[in-house]
Amino acid sequence: MPNQLDMIKGRRSIRRYEEKDIPEQDLQQVLESIQWSPSWANTQCWEVVVIKNPGQKEKLQATLNDTNPAKKAVIQSPVVLALCGKTKSAGYYKSQASTKFGDWLMFDLGIAAQSICLTAHDLGLGTVIVGMFDQDKAKGILGVGHEYELVALIPMGYPAKEASAPKRREIGEFTHYNQFNVRK
Amino acid sequence: MPNQLDMIKGRRSIRRYEEKDIPEQDLQQVLESIQWSPSWANTQCWEVVVIKNPGQKEKLQATLNDTNPAKKAVIQSPVVLALCGKTKSAGYYKSQASTKFGDWLMFDLGIAAQSICLTAHDLGLGTVIVGMFDQDKAKGILGVGHEYELVALIPMGYPAKEASAPKRREIGEFTHYNQFNVRK
Repeated sequence: MPNQLDMIKGRRSIRRYEEKDIPEQDLQQVLESIQWSPSWANTQCWEVVVIKNPGQKEKLQATLNDTNPAKKAVIQSPVVLALCGKTKSAGYYKSQASTKFGDWLMFDLGIAAQSICLTAHDLGLGTVIVGMFDQDKAKGILGVGHEYELVALIPMGYPAKEASAPKRREIGEFTHYNQFNVRK
Repeated sequence: MPNQLDMIKGRRSIRRYEEKDIPEQDLQQVLESIQWSPSWANTQCWEVVVIKNPGQKEKLQATLNDTNPAKKAVIQSPVVLALCGKTKSAGYYKSQASTKFGDWLMFDLGIAAQSICLTAHDLGLGTVIVGMFDQDKAKGILGVGHEYELVALIPMGYPAKEASAPKRREIGEFTHYNQFNVRK
């Protein structure tokens, strides 16, 4: 394996997949990468629905706009992960929000999403994080309980073609030293 | 380097550090891992303040409660990263929130936080994600602009002692198949 930075730099968002199943042990590794992600006070609010059923994938696909570039991916990928989280857990202490941001579910699921994408990439699997869809409709399709949120869909499979990397901001553009807007 | 899953499993939250600086090229690698993280429609809303100045660290430390187990880490670590994000960028399209979750800044900064922690770990550096502090006071100390949020502080340094891993939920406990609450 290349070093961690090269692994992060090598990951791409993949939206076209080969017709090829994911070995069960590889799927388990991806799930294990969620399990070992850090979380707010180790609250581990994550819940994951593994979707292989074509009927369920078709229903989920209908929650995306036709203009979404990941629309085909939801059907074409052998596995779609629905990343959910229990509300009022991360960021809470004794039922009270601890910070101005309220629920840290989004932050902790972001951490878990990167674990998923990197572990999949190391196994030769492509992923794309889909956030733009009707989350409440998707919750209904999957029967997600009301005390949970379904945040992202992550199609996963063997990449059918190489994807190019979108342009990135320069490090010097987003980095400040000791004080905001102070550059080195 | 071990495989990606082992890297994720080997990362610990580190709250005690050696008195030893971080080489500049290692810090740059950590910043590069943010640059190559995925983000909502490649919006890259992240901004990072690199804090080495002892006076700034002391002021930041005062924004944590005395009971916070990471309180000493903010002073002891050679570098603290303040992870900020531009608001109304991730999750927005033409100034309108695209989903029920409004701003996806928390999600995208969660992704970036995991990139930081993993890349640091690969370089022999320990980190801890601190989310429980007075974010608005910290914003004032660092002069973060009003169209940004300061979400997390990430102290970083060479671990002074090994940390044990907190207990994790079983994979079978958080995984569902095709439908919520359907176990394999």
